[in-house]
Amino acid sequence: MQILIVNPNTTASMTEKIAIAARTVARPDTEIIATNPREGPASIQGFHDGAMCVPGLLAEMARHPKTDAIIIACFDDTGLDAARCQTDVPVIGIGEAAFHAASFLSCKFSVITTLGRSVPGIEGNLKRYGLDARCAKVRATEIPVLELERNDPATLARIKTEIARALDEDRAEAIVLGCAGMADLMSLLSDEFKVPVIDGVACATTFAEALAATGLKTSKIGGYAQPTN
Amino acid sequence: MQILIVNPNTTASMTEKIAIAARTVARPDTEIIATNPREGPASIQGFHDGAMCVPGLLAEMARHPKTDAIIIACFDDTGLDAARCQTDVPVIGIGEAAFHAASFLSCKFSVITTLGRSVPGIEGNLKRYGLDARCAKVRATEIPVLELERNDPATLARIKTEIARALDEDRAEAIVLGCAGMADLMSLLSDEFKVPVIDGVACATTFAEALAATGLKTSKIGGYAQPTN
Amino acid sequence: MQILIVNPNTTASMTEKIAIAARTVARPDTEIIATNPREGPASIQGFHDGAMCVPGLLAEMARHPKTDAIIIACFDDTGLDAARCQTDVPVIGIGEAAFHAASFLSCKFSVITTLGRSVPGIEGNLKRYGLDARCAKVRATEIPVLELERNDPATLARIKTEIARALDEDRAEAIVLGCAGMADLMSLLSDEFKVPVIDGVACATTFAEALAATGLKTSKIGGYAQPTN
Amino acid sequence: MQILIVNPNTTASMTEKIAIAARTVARPDTEIIATNPREGPASIQGFHDGAMCVPGLLAEMARHPKTDAIIIACFDDTGLDAARCQTDVPVIGIGEAAFHAASFLSCKFSVITTLGRSVPGIEGNLKRYGLDARCAKVRATEIPVLELERNDPATLARIKTEIARALDEDRAEAIVLGCAGMADLMSLLSDEFKVPVIDGVACATTFAEALAATGLKTSKIGGYAQPTN
Amino acid sequence: MQILIVNPNTTASMTEKIAIAARTVARPDTEIIATNPREGPASIQGFHDGAMCVPGLLAEMARHPKTDAIIIACFDDTGLDAARCQTDVPVIGIGEAAFHAASFLSCKFSVITTLGRSVPGIEGNLKRYGLDARCAKVRATEIPVLELERNDPATLARIKTEIARALDEDRAEAIVLGCAGMADLMSLLSDEFKVPVIDGVACATTFAEALAATGLKTSKIGGYAQPTN
Amino acid sequence: MQILIVNPNTTASMTEKIAIAARTVARPDTEIIATNPREGPASIQGFHDGAMCVPGLLAEMARHPKTDAIIIACFDDTGLDAARCQTDVPVIGIGEAAFHAASFLSCKFSVITTLGRSVPGIEGNLKRYGLDARCAKVRATEIPVLELERNDPATLARIKTEIARALDEDRAEAIVLGCAGMADLMSLLSDEFKVPVIDGVACATTFAEALAATGLKTSKIGGYAQPTN
Repeated sequence: MQILIVNPNTTASMTEKIAIAARTVARPDTEIIATNPREGPASIQGFHDGAMCVPGLLAEMARHPKTDAIIIACFDDTGLDAARCQTDVPVIGIGEAAFHAASFLSCKFSVITTLGRSVPGIEGNLKRYGLDARCAKVRATEIPVLELERNDPATLARIKTEIARALDEDRAEAIVLGCAGMADLMSLLSDEFKVPVIDGVACATTFAEALAATGLKTSKIGGYAQPTN
Repeated sequence: MQILIVNPNTTASMTEKIAIAARTVARPDTEIIATNPREGPASIQGFHDGAMCVPGLLAEMARHPKTDAIIIACFDDTGLDAARCQTDVPVIGIGEAAFHAASFLSCKFSVITTLGRSVPGIEGNLKRYGLDARCAKVRATEIPVLELERNDPATLARIKTEIARALDEDRAEAIVLGCAGMADLMSLLSDEFKVPVIDGVACATTFAEALAATGLKTSKIGGYAQPTN
Repeated sequence: MQILIVNPNTTASMTEKIAIAARTVARPDTEIIATNPREGPASIQGFHDGAMCVPGLLAEMARHPKTDAIIIACFDDTGLDAARCQTDVPVIGIGEAAFHAASFLSCKFSVITTLGRSVPGIEGNLKRYGLDARCAKVRATEIPVLELERNDPATLARIKTEIARALDEDRAEAIVLGCAGMADLMSLLSDEFKVPVIDGVACATTFAEALAATGLKTSKIGGYAQPTN
Repeated sequence: MQILIVNPNTTASMTEKIAIAARTVARPDTEIIATNPREGPASIQGFHDGAMCVPGLLAEMARHPKTDAIIIACFDDTGLDAARCQTDVPVIGIGEAAFHAASFLSCKFSVITTLGRSVPGIEGNLKRYGLDARCAKVRATEIPVLELERNDPATLARIKTEIARALDEDRAEAIVLGCAGMADLMSLLSDEFKVPVIDGVACATTFAEALAATGLKTSKIGGYAQPTN
Repeated sequence: MQILIVNPNTTASMTEKIAIAARTVARPDTEIIATNPREGPASIQGFHDGAMCVPGLLAEMARHPKTDAIIIACFDDTGLDAARCQTDVPVIGIGEAAFHAASFLSCKFSVITTLGRSVPGIEGNLKRYGLDARCAKVRATEIPVLELERNDPATLARIKTEIARALDEDRAEAIVLGCAGMADLMSLLSDEFKVPVIDGVACATTFAEALAATGLKTSKIGGYAQPTN
Repeated sequence: MQILIVNPNTTASMTEKIAIAARTVARPDTEIIATNPREGPASIQGFHDGAMCVPGLLAEMARHPKTDAIIIACFDDTGLDAARCQTDVPVIGIGEAAFHAASFLSCKFSVITTLGRSVPGIEGNLKRYGLDARCAKVRATEIPVLELERNDPATLARIKTEIARALDEDRAEAIVLGCAGMADLMSLLSDEFKVPVIDGVACATTFAEALAATGLKTSKIGGYAQPTN
């Protein structure tokens, strides 16, 4: 099958990292197409960036009409509801994918994200999905999104520090990595901390395959009906 | 003071109706500027329209940097969080304004909106604001937004039918009119049904004046901090 | 228009401070009448005081039947539901006014109140209004209400300390001042902390004007129907 | 032991009926003292009556300082928090007693009360207690409280009609009788409908005995601390 | 990979139907092992059956220690928490799988289950998972579980009737089939009603594959730690 | 009357301690029968133990068919729903009894339990009962259940330390002892800390007497209907 992954920001190195994370877990016969808009914010840090990237995200989707499932590779699940209106294949956000995976694997999880300004959006999503009850805390590392592209060891150290605090102070039983830019850290950190350290790109990829394999589609009545304008 | 009202769709007749509703309740010395984007959806019916009009909405805001408060005149409160990032004056959505007003005036209210496809977005907003507990039901008339511009008596009759059912079946104590296109009906329907029938444009206008008069501003730390991109 | 503010306790100096705070933000043509019962508790500290002052509060309202809106100037919103039964003009509590204002201006706020014994009542109100989801924490300074009348610098210092902790530990984006006796501190503290520091008296005053300007009334069916006894 | 039951309204026939219901289930060695204020509303129908009877209720409590537990015999649990501040013996409202009992005996219950105007107060209490999740519906018979004193067969018929609808439409597994004036109907209706039909007076009486027997007292720190005024 | 599916009841024909449903959607290289306890209830209808089958379910799991993921094929997700303690591979209940799938594909879904007595357990699970907010209604057909094995056309007709009512009355956008015994109806009913009609066995199968493919395991700290007895 | 208390684990010394705690508060004419299964886990520490002891617990109930009420003496309320299906007398879990008692006596309570692995189950129960809103925090002492049988002074010291922290940090107004093995500490700790320190065995005993005295029974329609297998 073919899965389209749209990174809604314009940073190609991040799109590439996302594609690698997806291909690492995808079935051998799954074709992963990873793309990003040409114009728009270089990273999604907060509500304004999130809103500004949606038209570009929807345009990328429109350029690939034949996919079997679509992934929005921004942890804020930017534009998720709008995207579901535009297609009838399953659409998954990496944030929601990670939250659902964490709910299958633990009683309680914490999220480790980038800037504090992104926390309200993530908390709002958790509440909308109903999974806030399973989330102990959303923790900000205050690492800017694009800093994650530089592979600075200090960055990794700060992530590890927050994970350790989440396990100790929040009694978290699993950790959700709260940015697509952390997609390369799942195995490394799961091994080191001996708890599930969950990357949304990986989960969204295999959940997208899972939904596509059942033949189920996005409902086209009600909230996700085809746009009329 | 000056208040900017942005109708996020491109239908000028609706912008005009909104401006009249605002000026009817505004203080004599308040200047109401009502505008709409040049491009984008002609009406906001569901998540996709909502997302597509946000860049235009934010651009309209940017064209009027000197206002004392801003109103987003779409009942879905489209782009509200993003708009708050872009300015430090108070920003109010007409949906939230109506819900807050209804909470001040009744124990329980129902919402009468346009198409069923808009119901999930409105319910989601109520939940985010915490006011879902006060809302008995969101009822769809299945009247398309632009149909409200035609002043067809059958349209008004359908709205009245749903109000009557809300009072009877939902035990609603107040009614919220769930579309900016119904802004001209508040007095008429309040008088007829002898309960508060609440239009969000009117409430947002006087609440915007209210917040501006206190001197309070939108918080610029956390979720509504200035965009970095 | 005319707005009646009832301070439900019997401390006249507090009523005076409330009147000043209200007049500071009111429209030039709004007449503010501030009053308090002759008998009853000198301050409202907890549920018992709250209950004992309600008959006096309702009697003050009955003495002023011609107002356009009524404000209950106790942060616990004591007697709010009963007051709404007794009139059809809008009635606003300063606690709820502050919570609603904070919801318009920030993603998350903390409350700084007086004694710890008042915290459960405030938390209960937040839950009833549905705005508990927006409140990070209700913090007690352990300053008795009447101590606020003495203008002791140590009192202000304790309030500032709690604000600083709320911004740091709770990630609050706005602060709600949790006592009518703090009504004189809004501008000072907003300026100092560069975040909205919200006084309920000011917000209730302009919100009362706002509701009165729309012509909307308290619903007289259901929970707020005229008393039968 | 001695249990004080305060009927907060001034209708002596209702106090008498409450006393009988309490003595029917009390231990042989429990002394039931049932009383009501001399002045105040003749029945509690809505928030205004509820607030006006609290000082009288608290005064009745003060006249009987030696009891082992106190019951507030109004289904709205009027003045419950204030009463707990005034004493250290357990204080139980008949509404909360019935809700807790129903939670022990069924997955889901419905409440059958008097006037529709009392529904918001009951729903608010259920929410505060957290037991709203267990309540399928609060149903109004539109029977005024004092009508219950007349023993009109039509009144009983209306109650039975609502019970039948609750079992059928709400899938309720138990019924809570939502007024102290229905205290004489528990056995009759439980037998007829073959489900628990729960009277709060009976439950509050035996729960009061239960708490007193454990030796536990009302907490005197925090919200229920002794009043300072 | 190998996936173990345990039908916790002892009805082998149902186990066979479950195996077929799983193999229909599984990857070609996935080995599906479907089994059921030798002793215990023949169907799970309510809490008592649910509890009585858990030791047998856990014993079946212990007999197959080498699987890559485990599915509990009872819609009540009986024994799910206990099962997760006993292993470190992912464990998924078919109820939760269906609820999560429905959350990915629609704004709101209804559940069509067997007997009314199973509704409280399903509603309780939805609440625990946080997905109750997405569920419009749990509807009982009053078809006993084993009746589903007889392939009576009247049974299918009753299921269709409830689906039609859910789409009309509940405004459901997707349907969840609330019994493993309905696993053969997913395609048929999805095609007929043109909305997602979701079977938990299919979704649990592909979600189990999805989680196994990521390499993530059940957390072994906290609630799902290895049993000590 | 006769009350059956089933300790679901096999540790007879704990059953004996429970029986003493129950007899201390029971009416003189109440016969307390305390029993435990012969086989199964020696203590209930987490979900797996909880599930494994239920058949034994239900068998003990079946051996005593003539009781007036039944208590499940495990703080996790293991098997409570299943037990209610098997009988029509009232069935109370000691966890729920303690939570309900704490709700009658305080605005907010904390729970002091044994191992951290038990916390998710207790939190889940609080949520199901709706009383999570009243619980400030569930605190683990990391004392294994059977360690409580050894009467080690260090064990008591650890419990006291957590109580002190709950009063200080959580602003708890009452304490719930989160294990049947702490049943002997209620009076001692209530006296020492001057707040209600609540043991579920004592509360369940007098609540069971209370429900039995009203003549109310467990509902036999819906979720607690008689098992069909």
